[in-house]
Amino acid sequence: MSLLICIPDSMHPQSLCSALQSLDSGLKIEIGSENVHNQDEVEFAVVWKNPEGLLKNYPNLKAISSYGHGADALLADKQLPAGVPLVRLKDTTMAKWMSEYLLTVVLLQRRQLLEYAKNPEFSAWGTAVCHSHPGNQIGILGLGYLGLAAAKVFLLMDFKVSGWSRRNKQVKEVESFSGKKGFSAMLKQTDYLINLLPHTTETRDLLNIETLSQLKRGAYLINVGRGQTLVDEDLIALLDGGQLSGACLDVFRTEPLPKEHPFRKHKNIYWLSVGTQAPRPLSQLHRKYLKIIDGLFPVVNCLTQLI
Amino acid sequence: MSLLICIPDSMHPQSLCSALQSLDSGLKIEIGSENVHNQDEVEFAVVWKNPEGLLKNYPNLKAISSYGHGADALLADKQLPAGVPLVRLKDTTMAKWMSEYLLTVVLLQRRQLLEYAKNPEFSAWGTAVCHSHPGNQIGILGLGYLGLAAAKVFLLMDFKVSGWSRRNKQVKEVESFSGKKGFSAMLKQTDYLINLLPHTTETRDLLNIETLSQLKRGAYLINVGRGQTLVDEDLIALLDGGQLSGACLDVFRTEPLPKEHPFRKHKNIYWLSVGTQAPRPLSQLHRKYLKIIDGLFPVVNCLTQLI
Repeated sequence: MSLLICIPDSMHPQSLCSALQSLDSGLKIEIGSENVHNQDEVEFAVVWKNPEGLLKNYPNLKAISSYGHGADALLADKQLPAGVPLVRLKDTTMAKWMSEYLLTVVLLQRRQLLEYAKNPEFSAWGTAVCHSHPGNQIGILGLGYLGLAAAKVFLLMDFKVSGWSRRNKQVKEVESFSGKKGFSAMLKQTDYLINLLPHTTETRDLLNIETLSQLKRGAYLINVGRGQTLVDEDLIALLDGGQLSGACLDVFRTEPLPKEHPFRKHKNIYWLSVGTQAPRPLSQLHRKYLKIIDGLFPVVNCLTQLI
Repeated sequence: MSLLICIPDSMHPQSLCSALQSLDSGLKIEIGSENVHNQDEVEFAVVWKNPEGLLKNYPNLKAISSYGHGADALLADKQLPAGVPLVRLKDTTMAKWMSEYLLTVVLLQRRQLLEYAKNPEFSAWGTAVCHSHPGNQIGILGLGYLGLAAAKVFLLMDFKVSGWSRRNKQVKEVESFSGKKGFSAMLKQTDYLINLLPHTTETRDLLNIETLSQLKRGAYLINVGRGQTLVDEDLIALLDGGQLSGACLDVFRTEPLPKEHPFRKHKNIYWLSVGTQAPRPLSQLHRKYLKIIDGLFPVVNCLTQLI
């Protein structure tokens, strides 16, 4: 058997390969689909933003894992081989990293420092007196692995947290919403809206002038989910009208964001990459992969029911 | 009886007065020492940075409270009337505010964003990729009310926390140090040093080239205690030599910081005011004052043993 790694260079495929081989020196690994010696040998694939039809070429695949959170990038391939289990990624490091990022952004905004940081004409001396943003209600769109981890961190820091997901979730101290009515109800009470939803036909353009207008006046948007969920021109209109006080974005409809995109010039839009720790501590992830590769079945957290 | 409020205008004495009178409309309040009608009537004084000898003029004082945290500003008056209990301020709002401030600064530094924010030539686009500062060991100088509140918040966020105080303190999950040896031992393991010590003869110039050199290389200093604890020129030498990666300061030896002070031009020194929420939610504080005024004895958290 062999394992195929098919992820962008920015995700350091060679580093993943080395780490896996340091755990199991006998493991045969192929990096990239172009140079695979024997497609029949590939039994496990680790992919991110896999090109349409890529995976149908491996007849003996026993499992496919996305290397990023969310299954949407994987499911976008309409020619996925039928019956092959998909592994949902649950990366504790990424969950901690994402939660910390979200908390930092909210605390920055609460102290009105994002604006300070963005504007070069601000002087560090004398303007940095902190004023408090009054609200402390966090609304999280998407209560998956990352959303729940973030909710926990905000609760620890005494924020009020609500979450919206496809199905209602019972999470201690988190007010749970679902459905269209629940979406509106949550927006109405939210000061900081955090989007962690995947890109699906239901989430496309979900954050638009009609929905975002329901947020509390002066609310703040953080989009770390997918760029397609947000209607760009609607965000700008809401910022210019004062309905939203600002936005921090790490995902865009077109990535990298085009040079002439109006987001780049807007004083209340802040781009801040969630980033990753370098080197990414992969050991836990790898051990899980090895376990899966070793036994191959049963694959935990199988996504097949979603297809 | 009457109550004397003697605090700087920046602390909004009129607002404190109104808030107290809204709780007890019959309460007689004097603002500032200049216009006191009858010094014999004053039984309770709320002060901050009281001028030397101010309080000896009130023969019937039954208690004195500092309006800021720390007893040092009060105790600096060597003519304090003997035997009058001093009330230690424990402001839960300030503790939360300070803890959140310290966490924000540490998270910013961990993601290398302070530098980004300070330098106007940085572009918000393309340079904000987050890199992680590797360390996560917090060292807190001063485990009083504010220090303990901060320790708790850092523990919640999975930092390792140690604290140094006059006497060893037993606090769950906080490694406690005291004395000169303990000071060195704590510095050696610290990535983020937070100073919350009062200004006393023992703490004056405590943070100097000899002590700060013992921190882990690349450590970060946050001074929210007193400016006199830090030797200014030593901080600059340590930053320029790379021993420290940066400093965030909210207190200075001379306040406001002189216009020509080198701190203002140093690229790795960041001034960020802890600030206060406006309007400061005083109700809890006032209720405590009223209770003290009402009963006058026993005064909780009496500081007299420190004099």
